[in-house]
Amino acid sequence: MIAPVEGGITAPAGFAAAGVACGIKRAGLDLALVVSDRPASAAALFTTNRAAAAPVVLSRAHLESTQGVARAVVTNSGCANACTGPAGAEHAWLMAVETARAIGCEPEEVLVASTGVIGVALDIARVSAGIVAAGADLSPGHHARAAQAIMTTDPFPKAHAVAVETAAGSFRVGGMAKGSGMIEPRLATMLGYLTTDAAVAPAVLQRALAEVCDGTFNAITVDGECSTNDCVFALANGASGVRIGPGGHGALVEGLHAVALELALGIVRGGEGATKLVTVCVTGAASRADARRAARAIANSPLVKTAVHGGDPNWGRLIAVAGRSGAAFDLSRARVTIGDVVLFADGLPFDDRAAEAAAALGHPEVGLGVDLGTGGTGESVMWTCDLSAEYVRINAEYRT
Amino acid sequence: MIAPVEGGITAPAGFAAAGVACGIKRAGLDLALVVSDRPASAAALFTTNRAAAAPVVLSRAHLESTQGVARAVVTNSGCANACTGPAGAEHAWLMAVETARAIGCEPEEVLVASTGVIGVALDIARVSAGIVAAGADLSPGHHARAAQAIMTTDPFPKAHAVAVETAAGSFRVGGMAKGSGMIEPRLATMLGYLTTDAAVAPAVLQRALAEVCDGTFNAITVDGECSTNDCVFALANGASGVRIGPGGHGALVEGLHAVALELALGIVRGGEGATKLVTVCVTGAASRADARRAARAIANSPLVKTAVHGGDPNWGRLIAVAGRSGAAFDLSRARVTIGDVVLFADGLPFDDRAAEAAAALGHPEVGLGVDLGTGGTGESVMWTCDLSAEYVRINAEYRT
Repeated sequence: MIAPVEGGITAPAGFAAAGVACGIKRAGLDLALVVSDRPASAAALFTTNRAAAAPVVLSRAHLESTQGVARAVVTNSGCANACTGPAGAEHAWLMAVETARAIGCEPEEVLVASTGVIGVALDIARVSAGIVAAGADLSPGHHARAAQAIMTTDPFPKAHAVAVETAAGSFRVGGMAKGSGMIEPRLATMLGYLTTDAAVAPAVLQRALAEVCDGTFNAITVDGECSTNDCVFALANGASGVRIGPGGHGALVEGLHAVALELALGIVRGGEGATKLVTVCVTGAASRADARRAARAIANSPLVKTAVHGGDPNWGRLIAVAGRSGAAFDLSRARVTIGDVVLFADGLPFDDRAAEAAAALGHPEVGLGVDLGTGGTGESVMWTCDLSAEYVRINAEYRT
Repeated sequence: MIAPVEGGITAPAGFAAAGVACGIKRAGLDLALVVSDRPASAAALFTTNRAAAAPVVLSRAHLESTQGVARAVVTNSGCANACTGPAGAEHAWLMAVETARAIGCEPEEVLVASTGVIGVALDIARVSAGIVAAGADLSPGHHARAAQAIMTTDPFPKAHAVAVETAAGSFRVGGMAKGSGMIEPRLATMLGYLTTDAAVAPAVLQRALAEVCDGTFNAITVDGECSTNDCVFALANGASGVRIGPGGHGALVEGLHAVALELALGIVRGGEGATKLVTVCVTGAASRADARRAARAIANSPLVKTAVHGGDPNWGRLIAVAGRSGAAFDLSRARVTIGDVVLFADGLPFDDRAAEAAAALGHPEVGLGVDLGTGGTGESVMWTCDLSAEYVRINAEYRT
């Protein structure tokens, strides 16, 4: 059984957090620290972007060298430390060194993340001072400050936590994330953090994280742009005393999933210029991969996203995007729904239902359904937001 | 030697055209006819969309049954005749039958195209009456009316023609095209038409058309959306008396390319909401396919397109998109230019040149260059436009 609890990233036992202002952003908190009071199993997924930022390269190396153990994650916002050459690599390392000194561990036990403008040098003096201040301010009560400090100009912080009841006892999962909603235009970075006080071996945690992300953080899109700095971290410190054995894997995944999904949907709701949460559901695909391909194409289509924004029940765009997605597709058996209104089925349009579909598009949460008509059982769900003039405004303004 | 000439689609000898209003669009010309006075070699490229519209299915079948011979292309605007079931297929066939009757040929010698809203039934009575009127109004002087009649709400018509001098004599190539810029939001359809009075075997014409489109119509993007109705047609009627033999292939391709490129760039300049023509040039790729992959990703990136719109020299976005494109990429040797300003090279940023790059972005024609740093010789050029709030406005308005 799973139930929401208060406390965000520090809801699980044995975790503390801090969020401080170190002066990278013009105003507000910009340095977050999340610390486990004991070595935790650690897992992560990183951006697949081949221009991965310095902190991504460093964190990946640290997880390898410790074989999945960490004490802390340190994050600065306001500067991505990407495309910054050897100096950038040195700065990421110094963030780990400073954090290790502040909490008493090895630098390799620290994971590092950054988000902000690409190609600008990190002011390491300010960040180092911020880490010292954060280390002195760690508390389980500071979870909201940490969730605030990883934001750039997200419209709201994203945090969630649940308690998971199992036969072996109760454990908790907490999390926080940042999405995109910056005033200064830059590449959006998605950062996700999950903590649990369950005791989990690193390899098991990594597998569970990959499984969970497939249907949460990897099933959302705002603008189809994969950042140089995307990371999702999971730390499991065992402080609850509940050990995840072979039989407990389901409960662990369920707990991680509940928190990750809430954070992922929060990122979409807070997408740049977003006014609607759109659930794209593709069925009847020849394979799961085909279903995901079609769902992703629809979720990233500017014509679909502008139609949703304007409340235009232009269902032909859904057919057209499914048809160009590369997925197997049978027009004569395909089916399109907006909300629960069927607008096209078995090769025939029901355009007289357009008004009804337009009403469904008026809600802040919109469902789009496409059956690819292959008779296969492949299915996929993706979440996205609408495309508004505000997205253009945010991203077209001068960075300089 | 190639020189521009007047006359658009009817500049080559033996071609006539008409453009009439048949009442599918609320106002303006909406039916175009292009006719050769003798059977012409015919070639075409069609949309790869698996939801291909009825006229696409019909034209493909006609080209197969005649083995590449046609007398005419008939086009209506205002209705795509896509997702219209068996009635739609019947309507496309009736357009061919009516055209054949008007000009005196077999229905299979007529190619058919449509552009407009998806999923709405074609008013075949109006279209048929329009074909009769167009048949009675055919003239080499009506090329501009035909170019007008294929528009939906493109901001301007696209037509071009050239004369090609060869050792064997002179021939001409003409063309017209439509892009996207509709007031009623709908899926944009790209239609291209090329004519020549050179004598060319159908198979040679098809090969030349494919070669030409690769660097013209297939090298442009406005919003990454491949329509259900896209077609490019080429007709070669031999009226110049110049026969394209094995040695003349180069001149044919050159002539077709000159017209197709001008039309393709016209489509981008007239893209929905476009204010700038952007040339994306990718070099240093491991293969030509990799270069095209990266160029396409950059040309479709909403973050790149909004930055260009706002004149923001946010070069990190170019790196980030190249990095996520799937193409082989070496950050430490990559290079980014805006106009002729180098902003990143050999792993190091030159952010102090941002002001200079911003000035380059102020022009109506903008060049973006990315070298992927692999040391390979793969190169590709793509053309796109910027992404403006006007694009969102056009596509978010109610269709109904």
